[in-house]
Amino acid sequence: MADGSKSGTRGLPKGASTSGGFDVLTVIGLLLAVVAIVVGAILKGAGIKALGSRAAFMIVVVGTFAAIFVQTSLPVLQHAFKIAKWIVRPPVHDAESLIAKMVRWSNVSRKQGLLGLESFISREPDPFVKKGLQLVVDGSEPEVIRGILEVELDTREHADIAGAKVFEGMGVYSPTLGIIGAVLGLMAVMQNLNDPSKLGIGIAAAFTATVYGIGLANLVFLPMSAKLKGAIAAQSQIREMVIAGLISIAQGENPRALEAKLQSYLTP
Amino acid sequence: MADGSKSGTRGLPKGASTSGGFDVLTVIGLLLAVVAIVVGAILKGAGIKALGSRAAFMIVVVGTFAAIFVQTSLPVLQHAFKIAKWIVRPPVHDAESLIAKMVRWSNVSRKQGLLGLESFISREPDPFVKKGLQLVVDGSEPEVIRGILEVELDTREHADIAGAKVFEGMGVYSPTLGIIGAVLGLMAVMQNLNDPSKLGIGIAAAFTATVYGIGLANLVFLPMSAKLKGAIAAQSQIREMVIAGLISIAQGENPRALEAKLQSYLTP
Amino acid sequence: MADGSKSGTRGLPKGASTSGGFDVLTVIGLLLAVVAIVVGAILKGAGIKALGSRAAFMIVVVGTFAAIFVQTSLPVLQHAFKIAKWIVRPPVHDAESLIAKMVRWSNVSRKQGLLGLESFISREPDPFVKKGLQLVVDGSEPEVIRGILEVELDTREHADIAGAKVFEGMGVYSPTLGIIGAVLGLMAVMQNLNDPSKLGIGIAAAFTATVYGIGLANLVFLPMSAKLKGAIAAQSQIREMVIAGLISIAQGENPRALEAKLQSYLTP
Amino acid sequence: MADGSKSGTRGLPKGASTSGGFDVLTVIGLLLAVVAIVVGAILKGAGIKALGSRAAFMIVVVGTFAAIFVQTSLPVLQHAFKIAKWIVRPPVHDAESLIAKMVRWSNVSRKQGLLGLESFISREPDPFVKKGLQLVVDGSEPEVIRGILEVELDTREHADIAGAKVFEGMGVYSPTLGIIGAVLGLMAVMQNLNDPSKLGIGIAAAFTATVYGIGLANLVFLPMSAKLKGAIAAQSQIREMVIAGLISIAQGENPRALEAKLQSYLTP
Amino acid sequence: MADGSKSGTRGLPKGASTSGGFDVLTVIGLLLAVVAIVVGAILKGAGIKALGSRAAFMIVVVGTFAAIFVQTSLPVLQHAFKIAKWIVRPPVHDAESLIAKMVRWSNVSRKQGLLGLESFISREPDPFVKKGLQLVVDGSEPEVIRGILEVELDTREHADIAGAKVFEGMGVYSPTLGIIGAVLGLMAVMQNLNDPSKLGIGIAAAFTATVYGIGLANLVFLPMSAKLKGAIAAQSQIREMVIAGLISIAQGENPRALEAKLQSYLTP
Repeated sequence: MADGSKSGTRGLPKGASTSGGFDVLTVIGLLLAVVAIVVGAILKGAGIKALGSRAAFMIVVVGTFAAIFVQTSLPVLQHAFKIAKWIVRPPVHDAESLIAKMVRWSNVSRKQGLLGLESFISREPDPFVKKGLQLVVDGSEPEVIRGILEVELDTREHADIAGAKVFEGMGVYSPTLGIIGAVLGLMAVMQNLNDPSKLGIGIAAAFTATVYGIGLANLVFLPMSAKLKGAIAAQSQIREMVIAGLISIAQGENPRALEAKLQSYLTP
Repeated sequence: MADGSKSGTRGLPKGASTSGGFDVLTVIGLLLAVVAIVVGAILKGAGIKALGSRAAFMIVVVGTFAAIFVQTSLPVLQHAFKIAKWIVRPPVHDAESLIAKMVRWSNVSRKQGLLGLESFISREPDPFVKKGLQLVVDGSEPEVIRGILEVELDTREHADIAGAKVFEGMGVYSPTLGIIGAVLGLMAVMQNLNDPSKLGIGIAAAFTATVYGIGLANLVFLPMSAKLKGAIAAQSQIREMVIAGLISIAQGENPRALEAKLQSYLTP
Repeated sequence: MADGSKSGTRGLPKGASTSGGFDVLTVIGLLLAVVAIVVGAILKGAGIKALGSRAAFMIVVVGTFAAIFVQTSLPVLQHAFKIAKWIVRPPVHDAESLIAKMVRWSNVSRKQGLLGLESFISREPDPFVKKGLQLVVDGSEPEVIRGILEVELDTREHADIAGAKVFEGMGVYSPTLGIIGAVLGLMAVMQNLNDPSKLGIGIAAAFTATVYGIGLANLVFLPMSAKLKGAIAAQSQIREMVIAGLISIAQGENPRALEAKLQSYLTP
Repeated sequence: MADGSKSGTRGLPKGASTSGGFDVLTVIGLLLAVVAIVVGAILKGAGIKALGSRAAFMIVVVGTFAAIFVQTSLPVLQHAFKIAKWIVRPPVHDAESLIAKMVRWSNVSRKQGLLGLESFISREPDPFVKKGLQLVVDGSEPEVIRGILEVELDTREHADIAGAKVFEGMGVYSPTLGIIGAVLGLMAVMQNLNDPSKLGIGIAAAFTATVYGIGLANLVFLPMSAKLKGAIAAQSQIREMVIAGLISIAQGENPRALEAKLQSYLTP
Repeated sequence: MADGSKSGTRGLPKGASTSGGFDVLTVIGLLLAVVAIVVGAILKGAGIKALGSRAAFMIVVVGTFAAIFVQTSLPVLQHAFKIAKWIVRPPVHDAESLIAKMVRWSNVSRKQGLLGLESFISREPDPFVKKGLQLVVDGSEPEVIRGILEVELDTREHADIAGAKVFEGMGVYSPTLGIIGAVLGLMAVMQNLNDPSKLGIGIAAAFTATVYGIGLANLVFLPMSAKLKGAIAAQSQIREMVIAGLISIAQGENPRALEAKLQSYLTP
């Protein structure tokens, strides 16, 4: 999982946002996960009822939250829950129309000067692009524009990744807490070996915590963290493209060269 | 596995493409894998029939897809399945004939100027080389050529690696889902301890999920991901060589120096 | 856990210090951890008494300290215990008022020259900022200021991270020592197989060490180490912002540009 | 193991090649490994015969090759087996006589000009040094010499490391295949629980695959991969020293400074 | 453990060497480790005698040496045993008196020129500082001084880390060999299931190898490797400070600026 941070969409697929930005795959995946465990439990003969356990919930779910509370600061935790929705609604970025917009700005600035772009600032919805465009219109040096926007990109990316790592942390802690649950269950069983009739059921119950821990980690927390990292990487690459585009505009490069350069950020 | 991304062919073996680009080793490996498990199961006395299990399939295979659906965005998943064929048909690159071609271009450009290369653009099949050659013919500055082509290389490499990581992710999830399958199976067994005659068969069935999970991960998903990363690394190195060559041509370096430089990208 | 060092607040949340710098989440988390284990043990039927064990304490807790004593030098160990309090009281940094202060200094220096800042040096409480301001007032070259302050930032960050890694090390060693405890317990049980009545209780006692080891690691040591790393990362980013600000002042940049630049270090 | 690539001899021990380049330690290690397992098996009472198993061989050894065939391309696999001999005969490099040679060249070139080195080219056995010397005699710019030789060093190092990673991969796959073997064996045992007399022997046989898998990984494949990486690192450092030396010669630095510089590459 | 290399004292604690450079913590840690295991074994009821086992010694200890012999080259192994003493006697560096010395040299060189430092060369005990001072007195360019000393620092650091990694390798191999020992022991037990009276004792003996393997790794090898890496990191930072100081002197910087710069390498 360590380098899961690179598993995202670095190349921007053309037209990726046509589905309106709703990630139906996440929903299908989560449903399939429930199906796999429940149907699997029935086929194996363990039954669905065996999957319900207050003790396992207490140890694995409450324990995982306990660990993540100790691990994370409040602002990071809040940010994590704020960006959690990206697993179904990632931040929408239509790379191609963004390129088209920057080519238009490039044309305007070559005809009317950088000040000609002033009217576009208030119309720009994305605060990152807006701040960059403001810097261009202010006539800041390209180096200064790059410096400020890269710090901003970096700051946001790190804050978002800290959020995604909250779920990764949950995926690291829940299986080990599942083991604690199993061990505590086995301890209970062993203390009552004199009643062998309860042995099997006791062991079965003990293992429920393992299923909770490994299942939550591998079907929810870790994949969720990876999807968030993918969305964060896609967002950062869009912003790198924006920085490259705005600096080209500030340097008065010709619009055709600008477009060729920005097209390199799209996967073919 | 974390740094498996470096296990590929960074050095380009001379004449590596003479086998027509078909990777027969993958096919042999997959066949051998089946043989090892099936013959092993027979020799161990477990038999082949023990390896068939709907429950194990449901938990391990469906569960792995569930996890990977939550983890990956649709465009990345599609790209992963698109490049999956590279495990038997890696993108063909004949490094030596590419060097010969660039030496030829270098000679032409020194005699007829960069514009003399214009007729080669339309004949070039590889879109990456084509785009680079276009930039050279347009008389772009070497720095600009390098900048654009490196962004393009980087974008493609990251998109391809995101695809390869889909299979790595499947290799990470399937063994843990195999453990869930085994645990659910053991739970079923333990609930029926009163019928000891079924005990052994139940435990045997429980372990099938482990064999599925570990086997798929270690004989299919992880090696497959590593082979893809090898192909991606080889492709990136070819492109680094192309960038170095095109920039030499744009700078009007002498063809013999160009050849010496490009030869350094080949393993002896 | 390997890259846990990046799980911290790199982006500085606005107004994060309003809670007076007390991290109530850590306290809630530690309480919840006790609740999860104790209530879980009761629900599972293992009981609380099963959790008390001198042998498990000796092997896991004493053993973990033994390992960490061999691993760490005395000054690092002392520093680790000194910064341990950051899990409830992280170093307070009000990024916004720091930006306001640097904007004020920027205004003063443009009106009265860098020497006009001299009176602010003695009033500055943070020794890092103080040293930097002294360098600015001394008229040091921006490159020299950056060099000295970055070495200082780096030195402090590495010393603090070495402290945080003490707890990470404890989180790595305690589960393995828990396994040693379990194995020693099982060995004791196995030597006395002739008295089956004690079998179950013996095995139950054997597992206590596992609960100690995994519990301490995943509910205390590892999350604690991660929270420290988060606090360290936040502190380093504040200092990077201070360096950027002081260099702007030394270069006589205009206060509005300074503020725009420093705002980039805050998460929106 | 992840960063095992750095476990090699980066510092070049003086006179390390006096043993004629034969690495007797590898042979002693492999013999000791056999002794440890066989004598250990006898002392434990398991006996040597228990270690022979066609099923374990089929699953672990054939399975490991299956995995590595899927993982690796044919040229990389061939290169891996070609450099495998380095575990007993690493590429010989006498760093000190190489320094002496370069000091001699430095003296010659200061007296007779760079062309005076021409006669040394054909006498140089190492193709890397030869290519570099040719570039120096051709009067290439130091930057060009560095560029070409560093690409060459890098290409070779990556190809060699890809070879070493083949054995690392085998060391990753063989223990997991050992687990598959054990599970298949246990499944066979469980299916025949009605014949308890065969239970113990069956379980014992099942574990043989575990011994094969963990033993091959930890006593052969992983250490072998690490030794290869050490040899590769030593070779790369020699080549970095050669690059530094040749560039000094091309720049006409004085031979005493050259020697001081190159001595820094030797461990004292 | 992967990034244990950063767990050392990067910041140099003031006056850290006052204890005469003897690391009493290592001795206490090793004693505590023995106490934890022995007292723990007694409290658990396993007894001390159960911890003695020739078979476990043969498999775990001899096996670990076998693996490390295959893994490491002779010069690296010798260096590892040479620096092993650093766990109780780390190389002494009094950072503060070193700063004082360099400030003195700075004063001398500003009054008498760089040649005035010549008499200090022969009196300098540390060969690294000596070599650097010689370069300064020779009037070498700052860039050249930095180049040579950084190669030297790097070479030494890599050689030392290769030594520390020998113990890390032992810590990786010994637990897996402990598992082999346990499996071989269980195989012996299973072959003799017909004599149940020996069952328990056999299993107990089987587990001894696990205790050896995990105990040696986590209480000796891995912590020892980490302590060595800490000492190496501290040494490298001292040398980075020396390089910064000598270059300042060579550039004729003023002694007060020199002192301010070097103080940044000390933790407050």
